[in-house]
Amino acid sequence: MIKVGIVGGTGYTGVELLRLLAVHPEVQVTAITSRSEAGTAVADMFPNLRGYLDLQFSNPESAGLDTCDLVFFATPNGTAMKWVPDLLKAGVRVIDLAADFRLQEPAEWQQWYGEPHACPELLAEAVYGLPEVNRERIRKATLVANPGCYPTAVQLGFMPLLEHGLVDSGHLIADAKSGVSGAGRGGKVANLLCETSENMKAYGVQGHRHWPEIRQGLRQMTADPVGLTFVPHLTPMIRGIHATLYANLEKTGQDLQTLYEHRYAAEPFVDVMPAGSLPETRSVRGANVCRIAVHVPPSGNTAVVLSVIDNLVKGAAGQAVQNMNIMFGLEEAAGLQAIALVP
Amino acid sequence: MIKVGIVGGTGYTGVELLRLLAVHPEVQVTAITSRSEAGTAVADMFPNLRGYLDLQFSNPESAGLDTCDLVFFATPNGTAMKWVPDLLKAGVRVIDLAADFRLQEPAEWQQWYGEPHACPELLAEAVYGLPEVNRERIRKATLVANPGCYPTAVQLGFMPLLEHGLVDSGHLIADAKSGVSGAGRGGKVANLLCETSENMKAYGVQGHRHWPEIRQGLRQMTADPVGLTFVPHLTPMIRGIHATLYANLEKTGQDLQTLYEHRYAAEPFVDVMPAGSLPETRSVRGANVCRIAVHVPPSGNTAVVLSVIDNLVKGAAGQAVQNMNIMFGLEEAAGLQAIALVP
Amino acid sequence: MIKVGIVGGTGYTGVELLRLLAVHPEVQVTAITSRSEAGTAVADMFPNLRGYLDLQFSNPESAGLDTCDLVFFATPNGTAMKWVPDLLKAGVRVIDLAADFRLQEPAEWQQWYGEPHACPELLAEAVYGLPEVNRERIRKATLVANPGCYPTAVQLGFMPLLEHGLVDSGHLIADAKSGVSGAGRGGKVANLLCETSENMKAYGVQGHRHWPEIRQGLRQMTADPVGLTFVPHLTPMIRGIHATLYANLEKTGQDLQTLYEHRYAAEPFVDVMPAGSLPETRSVRGANVCRIAVHVPPSGNTAVVLSVIDNLVKGAAGQAVQNMNIMFGLEEAAGLQAIALVP
Amino acid sequence: MIKVGIVGGTGYTGVELLRLLAVHPEVQVTAITSRSEAGTAVADMFPNLRGYLDLQFSNPESAGLDTCDLVFFATPNGTAMKWVPDLLKAGVRVIDLAADFRLQEPAEWQQWYGEPHACPELLAEAVYGLPEVNRERIRKATLVANPGCYPTAVQLGFMPLLEHGLVDSGHLIADAKSGVSGAGRGGKVANLLCETSENMKAYGVQGHRHWPEIRQGLRQMTADPVGLTFVPHLTPMIRGIHATLYANLEKTGQDLQTLYEHRYAAEPFVDVMPAGSLPETRSVRGANVCRIAVHVPPSGNTAVVLSVIDNLVKGAAGQAVQNMNIMFGLEEAAGLQAIALVP
Repeated sequence: MIKVGIVGGTGYTGVELLRLLAVHPEVQVTAITSRSEAGTAVADMFPNLRGYLDLQFSNPESAGLDTCDLVFFATPNGTAMKWVPDLLKAGVRVIDLAADFRLQEPAEWQQWYGEPHACPELLAEAVYGLPEVNRERIRKATLVANPGCYPTAVQLGFMPLLEHGLVDSGHLIADAKSGVSGAGRGGKVANLLCETSENMKAYGVQGHRHWPEIRQGLRQMTADPVGLTFVPHLTPMIRGIHATLYANLEKTGQDLQTLYEHRYAAEPFVDVMPAGSLPETRSVRGANVCRIAVHVPPSGNTAVVLSVIDNLVKGAAGQAVQNMNIMFGLEEAAGLQAIALVP
Repeated sequence: MIKVGIVGGTGYTGVELLRLLAVHPEVQVTAITSRSEAGTAVADMFPNLRGYLDLQFSNPESAGLDTCDLVFFATPNGTAMKWVPDLLKAGVRVIDLAADFRLQEPAEWQQWYGEPHACPELLAEAVYGLPEVNRERIRKATLVANPGCYPTAVQLGFMPLLEHGLVDSGHLIADAKSGVSGAGRGGKVANLLCETSENMKAYGVQGHRHWPEIRQGLRQMTADPVGLTFVPHLTPMIRGIHATLYANLEKTGQDLQTLYEHRYAAEPFVDVMPAGSLPETRSVRGANVCRIAVHVPPSGNTAVVLSVIDNLVKGAAGQAVQNMNIMFGLEEAAGLQAIALVP
Repeated sequence: MIKVGIVGGTGYTGVELLRLLAVHPEVQVTAITSRSEAGTAVADMFPNLRGYLDLQFSNPESAGLDTCDLVFFATPNGTAMKWVPDLLKAGVRVIDLAADFRLQEPAEWQQWYGEPHACPELLAEAVYGLPEVNRERIRKATLVANPGCYPTAVQLGFMPLLEHGLVDSGHLIADAKSGVSGAGRGGKVANLLCETSENMKAYGVQGHRHWPEIRQGLRQMTADPVGLTFVPHLTPMIRGIHATLYANLEKTGQDLQTLYEHRYAAEPFVDVMPAGSLPETRSVRGANVCRIAVHVPPSGNTAVVLSVIDNLVKGAAGQAVQNMNIMFGLEEAAGLQAIALVP
Repeated sequence: MIKVGIVGGTGYTGVELLRLLAVHPEVQVTAITSRSEAGTAVADMFPNLRGYLDLQFSNPESAGLDTCDLVFFATPNGTAMKWVPDLLKAGVRVIDLAADFRLQEPAEWQQWYGEPHACPELLAEAVYGLPEVNRERIRKATLVANPGCYPTAVQLGFMPLLEHGLVDSGHLIADAKSGVSGAGRGGKVANLLCETSENMKAYGVQGHRHWPEIRQGLRQMTADPVGLTFVPHLTPMIRGIHATLYANLEKTGQDLQTLYEHRYAAEPFVDVMPAGSLPETRSVRGANVCRIAVHVPPSGNTAVVLSVIDNLVKGAAGQAVQNMNIMFGLEEAAGLQAIALVP
């Protein structure tokens, strides 16, 4: 059994990690930290865990994190980078679900997250945890930067097109729609049911922190310059991301369906749907899978890729467990076999 | 492995059965019938099952149901009763998720369901599948009538009070709220998102088919006459039932909390929450559990019981799997370990 | 034109008042206060008001409230009572949408709201603003306590039964379901979309502030002792209250339908629906009306009353405008003619 | 008073017309037809209209449509074209809310709607009812083709850019998100709450009937060839369209904000929001307005236009009333003054 600690267990990625890890056959969760809730039984805050997890939140200092085999950080951006160096020195492996180790350039991190990086020397060592790109590096990693939710859906959607140089990479458009859980569990007016239900809006048009992360990933898929317009939208649902991707085809007559199927044939958690499919976010609700369909509308020479994930699973906690499985030599699908909840 | 057939696989209880059975360690689903969808791959209709279930819908006549160990009926009311006698003769055990075998009196069935019962001689043999009441009878049953969703929540909520004669059983009130999936997957205007979202209404005030079923169950818990007012409501959510139960206490000073905890101490799928709790339907979303809290408001001598289930799981498919596990001598919780999906 | 000020314009009752008053033919809104938003254009915070209202939030001290004909308080409980005495002295009439002047006993206020009342001498002067009960007193009032949302729906529903002594007033049950806007616009985790959507729960079972308010009102309808069990529930929608009321009939054979129709025949904003109706909350969305249906289920001697309102309109801002219209001798329906938004 | 008839009053555009017309100061609704509901009181089907409309549905043959001044068709596509010639001959003016008279080429109509056009000779006479383009022609029209919901949002959003030749019109992208009411009130499984809530999906990627309509409109705004990729999405809400439009800027350094403000300065129902705004669909819920924001993300040379409407109001019934007002010389905003319902 792998001894696992979770730092920051009161947010949505934290409780989702708990949901997955509490029934994972190879994991024992030994510590969950939360300063504000120290002493509270986890199952009192999240009654869905009653009977599955007999742990209390504890202060991070006294949680015994350095005796864990692996620590997940489900903390706000800028927290993990202050703890990770000591944990790594103690021989603990780390998966950070926040953004601290996703961007390879410290200056870019500072630009988008508003403070200097606390341990820039670790950025080269950190592995970006998108298994479909970096599986072998993840296998040997001690520090994994778990990708953002939008970046997961967008990169998996564009990847085959860029790897084969089929599109104008200078004018990529990602129009993404997210459920509200992507905005976190903080008590903000903007995320109240009465502000978000029966409503749709774009946000971050002038700059979203996932934009540099996506661009960095896309650049590794092609030698050509990458120009990306990324517009995220808030959608009145709890879970789910639907990324609609547009790219101008530079070569016509390609069999994109086969291209996508081949690219992801061996991937356990990417499902290329049959030609003509229209993936729904509910088809991945609670499940660690990205479903993709690729279209070329009859009216033009534009490829349209539809890519859906559950932002809390393949876009966060599920992918983190997938990375853990890879790092520890387990079955990659261990603990990730649940079927999406429909309806 | 138990060979299982499902008759009527295109409704919400059908697809929920598939979600549970496709990853059940002791079950092989060998047939799913649907006349209208015969020949369609199940996973084409329900893409959440892609990769988990490689079956097509078939016509019931050619599905080989008589070679199954167990057949679930997830059909409209009045269907199973036409098929069950032959299946039983062929040695197949049956769990009916519809109402055909729930009422013990044929006349009552005719009154509420509008046609004569097709096999009244089987009603005495059919076991009402509420394990918390009938576990031993279920163990030996060949035909199980899986309870309705409201009846499950209401009976489990009232049971300890009635068994101990603590309340006026002549004036019981059950105010129940259900998600829309309880209304089925038929294409009815009344269940469109635009009719049910951002809306709340009562229905069936002048008579609902679950009323005689609940009353029949409550009568078995007490020797006193039972008077029940039952008002169901449609709530703008997909899954979940919240039953709020009211009963006049005839004896004061009882420790109802302890009473409930004792009654359900050995039950794997009834969770009596701590005193003062307010169970939420999402805490059981996708999970086979009934969570109950019992209150006595300071203002009076009325007991208020709050009982929540997922209508598709403990209120339908999950309870059916629980019954199957009992009937076949499996671990009662086999295949029912998933944690509720929160958020 | 009546010169109107609004204290506390950033919550849901505040913006709803603005929506109604901005197009009211006899009103000019001259001041809207908010300390935290002073200087912000109201239409920047609530873009639905763009083009209808050219005002900024101001500090209450500098808003010129004492030059208004009428000031509405849409503030948290305990605020209005500190301002009202001076405004009344300045000859300004006041409608308080909070609870400060609803309870007639200062001790009861202190018990339920946790602090001594700041101006108990005004409680006798304040008129409880339920026009269907107090229209003539409202006409002459200088200070109106606008009723709570639950109390409006519950009192209007029970009134005919109690006035005629038809039911056991000692065992009344009000099971009420509210949309989330009733919980206000504060940034609380509990009211996030991800906490409240796809979820249903009871709350306040051990005591809710609307309970003494309702009981006080019901007591004025009958000479018999009143016993009330009140259980509010949070429902996954923005607007709407559905109160389901239960009372034991002491006399049978009464024509309750006619009784209700007569009682409310002259009321412009109470709609007794035809016998057998099942009122939906959406049928009052955005409209200042309470729709009521009365049932006696065949199974018993229990009256079931279904009463729906929009908690922000007939349950708050609309009723406040109705009270204003009465106080100032306007058409009672002035500015309140919009039809409910369906779907 | 204008005597108005409505053909097809049971769908969402029909009931929305009724909501607007029942309180329109210059209109008397004299007939509402529905074969299936003939004889039913309209307010029995739509209780929000109780007290506002004392009419029954009637058969179209006996409704006296030819005595109306104006008839609205809120019927399925392909119905109006069979009735309109006779009505026009009888001197009745017509506004068709369906697609029958939107496309100017009969062949294109046949291609997209699957049958020959019944009165192609009227297509030249029909005026496309987008007031921001055709106000003067509408003023004199006897037959108005009310635009589709997506076409309204998309055309108003692109118009200033195309009229000034600022973008590459050959690669326009419209990613549009609609509430479910756009799919109509038919009893289809696909539009059930349990299929659409907590879900997001694209549809019509391979061809949607609004695509030729939009393209036809865009072509009239520019002499350059128009290439349009249009991907509509179904969003879990009742009302609202959010169109996110992408176009490559051919000239940089343009002040797009001022351009948009000038273009729509005189338009009563187009609101160009301040620079940097992120319009929300709820800000137009129930209101006849299109709110637009124009952005140029710092990362590129792509214009991003955000355009929101209520699909049932500015996207259907409200625009129809606006067209009626123009046709009959009324105040253009008559009956269209209600403020959007927020929250």
